[in-house]
Amino acid sequence: MSRLGAGPATLLGPGDDAAVVRAADGRVVASTDVLVEGRHFRRDWCGPADVGHRAAAANLADIAAMGATPTALLVALCVPGDLDASWAEGLADGLTAEAALCGASVVGGDMSSSPALAVAVTALGDLGGLDPVRRDGARPGDLLALCGRIGYAAAGYTVLSRGFRTPKMLVEAYRRPVVRYAAGPEAARLGATSMIDVSDGLLQDVGHLASAGRVGMDIRSSAFDVPDQMRDAAKALGVDPYQWVLAGGDDHPLAATFPAGTELPDGWREIGSVHDGSGVTVDGRPWSGPLGWDHFR
Amino acid sequence: MSRLGAGPATLLGPGDDAAVVRAADGRVVASTDVLVEGRHFRRDWCGPADVGHRAAAANLADIAAMGATPTALLVALCVPGDLDASWAEGLADGLTAEAALCGASVVGGDMSSSPALAVAVTALGDLGGLDPVRRDGARPGDLLALCGRIGYAAAGYTVLSRGFRTPKMLVEAYRRPVVRYAAGPEAARLGATSMIDVSDGLLQDVGHLASAGRVGMDIRSSAFDVPDQMRDAAKALGVDPYQWVLAGGDDHPLAATFPAGTELPDGWREIGSVHDGSGVTVDGRPWSGPLGWDHFR
Repeated sequence: MSRLGAGPATLLGPGDDAAVVRAADGRVVASTDVLVEGRHFRRDWCGPADVGHRAAAANLADIAAMGATPTALLVALCVPGDLDASWAEGLADGLTAEAALCGASVVGGDMSSSPALAVAVTALGDLGGLDPVRRDGARPGDLLALCGRIGYAAAGYTVLSRGFRTPKMLVEAYRRPVVRYAAGPEAARLGATSMIDVSDGLLQDVGHLASAGRVGMDIRSSAFDVPDQMRDAAKALGVDPYQWVLAGGDDHPLAATFPAGTELPDGWREIGSVHDGSGVTVDGRPWSGPLGWDHFR
Repeated sequence: MSRLGAGPATLLGPGDDAAVVRAADGRVVASTDVLVEGRHFRRDWCGPADVGHRAAAANLADIAAMGATPTALLVALCVPGDLDASWAEGLADGLTAEAALCGASVVGGDMSSSPALAVAVTALGDLGGLDPVRRDGARPGDLLALCGRIGYAAAGYTVLSRGFRTPKMLVEAYRRPVVRYAAGPEAARLGATSMIDVSDGLLQDVGHLASAGRVGMDIRSSAFDVPDQMRDAAKALGVDPYQWVLAGGDDHPLAATFPAGTELPDGWREIGSVHDGSGVTVDGRPWSGPLGWDHFR
């Protein structure tokens, strides 16, 4: 991989048998995600740097969702023989730029020719002395909160899949998620009882928190501001915008539960509550739309 | 991924947004390799567990080659829709079993459908307070040593590519490399000045040590015992067995340089020396055969 930067945690970068990354905490957080062309991205919808940003964000958000600060990425790239070399360079640029947003860098990688284009990213992170925030700690009475945009990427996906290229805000949201990585450690310091990054849809991922914690959760639809551009696009495309908000993926906001009364800092908003029981409801009722985000199905 | 074990370094295993792995040293060593069907393995030559062993070994050997002890693997798997589910289970079994040989475990993964079968593995490791052994530290006067089998996997590859299934020892060596992972930290403690795992052929990988260290190296061909089975197979197939030994890959022995006079422990053998200059010679002369191992060219 070319064009790799060296962040503060990089003790030995690319070029040797392995990289060496600072793990001052004595523990390292690690997660892997793979994106495959045709299933997770399309080259006619996203440029190579966009794919790099998306692949990095999907992994870095997993690290943040543990309450950790990302330190490094490693990248395995499968490329068809006829792929232009500049595409891989653009991808590396996007990965490097997204990692830099949270102080991380690309420390290693491997590339192979392959019949199918795919990029597998592993992200590492540091807990900074905090306990990891797992999925299973929510307790009845906790509040449910969200940090980051939701529904934007799904709206952009619908716009692109109908053959449009505007509204630009929504299309760009699909191409490059905007994740506030620092919100992960922030939530851990605030005493978050459980946390997840919303990659497959709010109802589905909050459902993971509910089932892991053996509790029920209710989401208040009034907690979400549907911006004008999203509302207009939904109307023009004949879509319920709450379908994007509640079941759309790929924005990677952080969803977390906190003890009741926790004062949430800027960027976080309360979107619901935790109660005895099971499953996830919206305004006290089951949601009747689809429950998740199936890429390109 | 199913069937994953939890080793001593696993603080939080699969099932959350990310895993948490012990990094007691305050640094973590990390490396990624990807294996693609048709290029790095063939399903008619290797069972799924074999592919798991090979993919894990390729990565774990990179960790050992830094002088570190492997702690964890993360796996990204791209699978065609028609692949039998038992194949992925067999792969996970092989990965888990190979990792267990050095006390590591599979702590996370991701799986996606894809037109091409590929497995990308990231290995993590712990330096245990030692400095990482890089590729660039060899000095004139050092001795060059090797730990592990060499030429066996290449011989097995040739046997399989000619349509044979025996000698079994050679075929099995290709299917499942035998790597002495503990030799990595052992070499670091002995003061190794540079180290690499031989994955692409001895001359090529020792060449990396020579160029990184800006030195020349000479290999003594008499240092290698060509076992009877390899010699017989070479004769039957019309191959020079030194072609396998000097240019064959996939066995993943460790090659390292040590200060002159270092007493090498069991398993290591001196195979050459470091001198002023550049490049790698065999018995003082340039080697005229191919210089590397091109998978399935």
